[in-house]
Amino acid sequence: MSNYVLNTWYPLTWSRNVGHALTAHQILEQQVVLYRTEGGKVIAMEDACPHRLLPLSMGKLRGDAIECGYHGMTYDCSGKCVRVPGQDLIPSSAFVRTYPIHENMGLVWIWMGDPAMADPGKVFDLPQYHDPRWSAVEGDALEIKANYLNLADNLCDPAHVSFVHLSTLGNAASEDVPVHSEQQDGKVVTWRWVIDAPPIPLFAKHGHFKGNVDRWHYYYYHAPSIAVIDFGSAETGTGAPEGRRDNCIQIFACHFITPVDQDTCIDHWLHVKNFQADAQVNAELSADFRVAFSEDKTILEAIQRNERRLPSRRTVKIAIDAGSQRMRRLVERMREAEAPTA
Amino acid sequence: MSNYVLNTWYPLTWSRNVGHALTAHQILEQQVVLYRTEGGKVIAMEDACPHRLLPLSMGKLRGDAIECGYHGMTYDCSGKCVRVPGQDLIPSSAFVRTYPIHENMGLVWIWMGDPAMADPGKVFDLPQYHDPRWSAVEGDALEIKANYLNLADNLCDPAHVSFVHLSTLGNAASEDVPVHSEQQDGKVVTWRWVIDAPPIPLFAKHGHFKGNVDRWHYYYYHAPSIAVIDFGSAETGTGAPEGRRDNCIQIFACHFITPVDQDTCIDHWLHVKNFQADAQVNAELSADFRVAFSEDKTILEAIQRNERRLPSRRTVKIAIDAGSQRMRRLVERMREAEAPTA
Amino acid sequence: MSNYVLNTWYPLTWSRNVGHALTAHQILEQQVVLYRTEGGKVIAMEDACPHRLLPLSMGKLRGDAIECGYHGMTYDCSGKCVRVPGQDLIPSSAFVRTYPIHENMGLVWIWMGDPAMADPGKVFDLPQYHDPRWSAVEGDALEIKANYLNLADNLCDPAHVSFVHLSTLGNAASEDVPVHSEQQDGKVVTWRWVIDAPPIPLFAKHGHFKGNVDRWHYYYYHAPSIAVIDFGSAETGTGAPEGRRDNCIQIFACHFITPVDQDTCIDHWLHVKNFQADAQVNAELSADFRVAFSEDKTILEAIQRNERRLPSRRTVKIAIDAGSQRMRRLVERMREAEAPTA
Repeated sequence: MSNYVLNTWYPLTWSRNVGHALTAHQILEQQVVLYRTEGGKVIAMEDACPHRLLPLSMGKLRGDAIECGYHGMTYDCSGKCVRVPGQDLIPSSAFVRTYPIHENMGLVWIWMGDPAMADPGKVFDLPQYHDPRWSAVEGDALEIKANYLNLADNLCDPAHVSFVHLSTLGNAASEDVPVHSEQQDGKVVTWRWVIDAPPIPLFAKHGHFKGNVDRWHYYYYHAPSIAVIDFGSAETGTGAPEGRRDNCIQIFACHFITPVDQDTCIDHWLHVKNFQADAQVNAELSADFRVAFSEDKTILEAIQRNERRLPSRRTVKIAIDAGSQRMRRLVERMREAEAPTA
Repeated sequence: MSNYVLNTWYPLTWSRNVGHALTAHQILEQQVVLYRTEGGKVIAMEDACPHRLLPLSMGKLRGDAIECGYHGMTYDCSGKCVRVPGQDLIPSSAFVRTYPIHENMGLVWIWMGDPAMADPGKVFDLPQYHDPRWSAVEGDALEIKANYLNLADNLCDPAHVSFVHLSTLGNAASEDVPVHSEQQDGKVVTWRWVIDAPPIPLFAKHGHFKGNVDRWHYYYYHAPSIAVIDFGSAETGTGAPEGRRDNCIQIFACHFITPVDQDTCIDHWLHVKNFQADAQVNAELSADFRVAFSEDKTILEAIQRNERRLPSRRTVKIAIDAGSQRMRRLVERMREAEAPTA
Repeated sequence: MSNYVLNTWYPLTWSRNVGHALTAHQILEQQVVLYRTEGGKVIAMEDACPHRLLPLSMGKLRGDAIECGYHGMTYDCSGKCVRVPGQDLIPSSAFVRTYPIHENMGLVWIWMGDPAMADPGKVFDLPQYHDPRWSAVEGDALEIKANYLNLADNLCDPAHVSFVHLSTLGNAASEDVPVHSEQQDGKVVTWRWVIDAPPIPLFAKHGHFKGNVDRWHYYYYHAPSIAVIDFGSAETGTGAPEGRRDNCIQIFACHFITPVDQDTCIDHWLHVKNFQADAQVNAELSADFRVAFSEDKTILEAIQRNERRLPSRRTVKIAIDAGSQRMRRLVERMREAEAPTA
């Protein structure tokens, strides 16, 4: 386990995927087995029987305990061995590491660091997700063969949409609009306003605007692995830049990133919007996001390959990098703060 | 060539697969070309022409000599170069290493160590294989992406059948029955008896028992790479545990392992049984073994992957490990005995 | 970038494949993006934007400049950054390395070394390629998973055709005919004559000979990566060995090798012959060469695998190796001459 932040809640998988059956996952280069007890609680353990290292996910649930598929050694929800077939004495070293788990916003969150520090009250939350006046739609778990901080760069970066997402989230009107950023408590905000410009394709489709709009992008990056992108548009002249959002379309695009290993991450994305829509419109919205994030995936994977080829290459910095540089410094400080215990 | 025992006869391939044609094999990380001479003798050479290293298996047989497929350099059965096209003088360094070979029990056995020590009289034999009162059926060559000693663990381990092979070789009756083991000359025996229990699926199918049976499993591991599993059942009360086997069903399941490299081995398996059967019953028996060994393969390959991920992890030992620990110490002593010459 | 000759013109790709669109290539372990300007000139740049390392081949042409697909940074034909969207100041470090390019014989040639030394007058040329009395036919770009010098060995080696190419370029008549070689200025010549023998399959098909022929093979290897094989036949007794070639069939088989990395090269092959032929005959000739070079590919890839397995194995040298040994010494001297600047 190398340079990851440990003492934080990471998104691991969608709650909808975890039932009373064993499933295997990888995070921070660790293998984890997950299941939901008969009482509905999600349990996470290291996915290796301490006897021969067979993945426990290849075993069976016996009630709420896991029976290893090789010799039947059985572990309860706390990871304690409660049975060794053929012998009465259970070795004291026969236990499996478990990880604190909490569910919120349709996701299972895991704590890979010091369990004593795991406070469920600190799991990330977006209030609008639970607000009936808003509408939340879960997306996919998109695997990207790239370091999670390269995806994080992309999520502190309103500028790329003008070049990467021309069919969905961006258009040429914003190419030269400057970007601002600042660090706030535990997060980095990067934003820009595009004033009096045609709506982007996604808003043209769903916003029913008559003329030009004022468009905002606020990228909130909650280090180390969560992004909430608040973007929206209002008709030009209605005062959106000054804070009035009465007649606007607004979407929170959320990205919950699982760092799998140094070259792989999973982007669990969902969106929360300030208007109701039927299943077909929701599916259309998700399809548009799917197109956009697949464009990011293509770019991030190509960058990852070139970084592997050119490990010592110094890159050029430009103005729009300020947000991602702030984010990387913030993550670095979180790591450094953990160094003495690691 | 790292930590393998060298001075021993290893099974390499089925005799049935070796004719008057060149075939390529790998054992102990070495490439070997094999063929049968016109007179019927099996020849084994390193599979690399000493000129440019082209595999000789890509060449042609000229009588009993191999002609390299690149420039026609030709080697006789002793590995000596007998022709260099375009020149009369044959360089003294132009020879190919050959390996002692012996055939027995339907297999080609190879000696990868010091040829002076290769005694064909020491090739493994099971007398019942040749006894007309018994019936032998050859199985497959099952490639397993696991170290051969992990497969060996499995073959010193009667306990796993109660959890891994429920549809064929095991049942729940034996889950808690203790296992015994001891080292004998050059081999390790691991065994257990299951008294007065329902027959396992394989014996229920072929044994025509009316009630419960006494079942034995004796796992003989001939280090470093041969296992013979003597297992059978007799009706409870007929004295099998005391040594009477008059009315029993008994099968020797033999495993002849080729260590290919540190992460791969090939299990050549066959079975010899104390009853005659027609082709259909033999095929059914082989099909059942095929199911069981494929279950082992799945488990051993998953363990191998976890061992690669967790190279320094100390594992927990339980009572049923005594047999495999004895086997590993025996193999280790065989290696150490070779160290001065290696 | 390890042990390659740098200051030389390397073939990179067929001119026919380069239009006004971005294509990605690899040579000497470097990534290169290629395109043809609106004016018809071929431009080559390192295939990585200096900002985030996204391959520029994933961007767009804006006129003759490349716009990066991530943030729109734009580079002109000299590699100079001419636009950074969102800011006026262009960082002085924002430039992309370009490579000298020249086209000849249907190929794009690239200079990976010191640009100041790149003299287009030194790009390889075969005068007959341009001579209307001769007939040139372009072949393929054959990828071979082998070090380019192993392919070079093969192209300094008339002897292998008697064993590898029996259906096309060789026959048994030449098995024992000795090979000669000498170094000339910047190249190695390896040759042999086969006197008064049946024509090889290719010449039997196209040469309409009545009886035996005198056949020559002159392999010219222009270090480090070009081979021209002058081979032909004339009826025996018409004086070909003495220099008369009036009634002969003669073909220059040219191999233009791109070293991709230590285990991969691309053989761009074409042939130039002293007789005219219709499209069908040309296609038949190319098909025959395709068969022959595919035979070489099979052999060279097997050798490469064995070399990786046996890195310290000393090989046996025989008489026919003299040509390839001369070639390798010549390449080695070219490298050594570059060492002080490298």
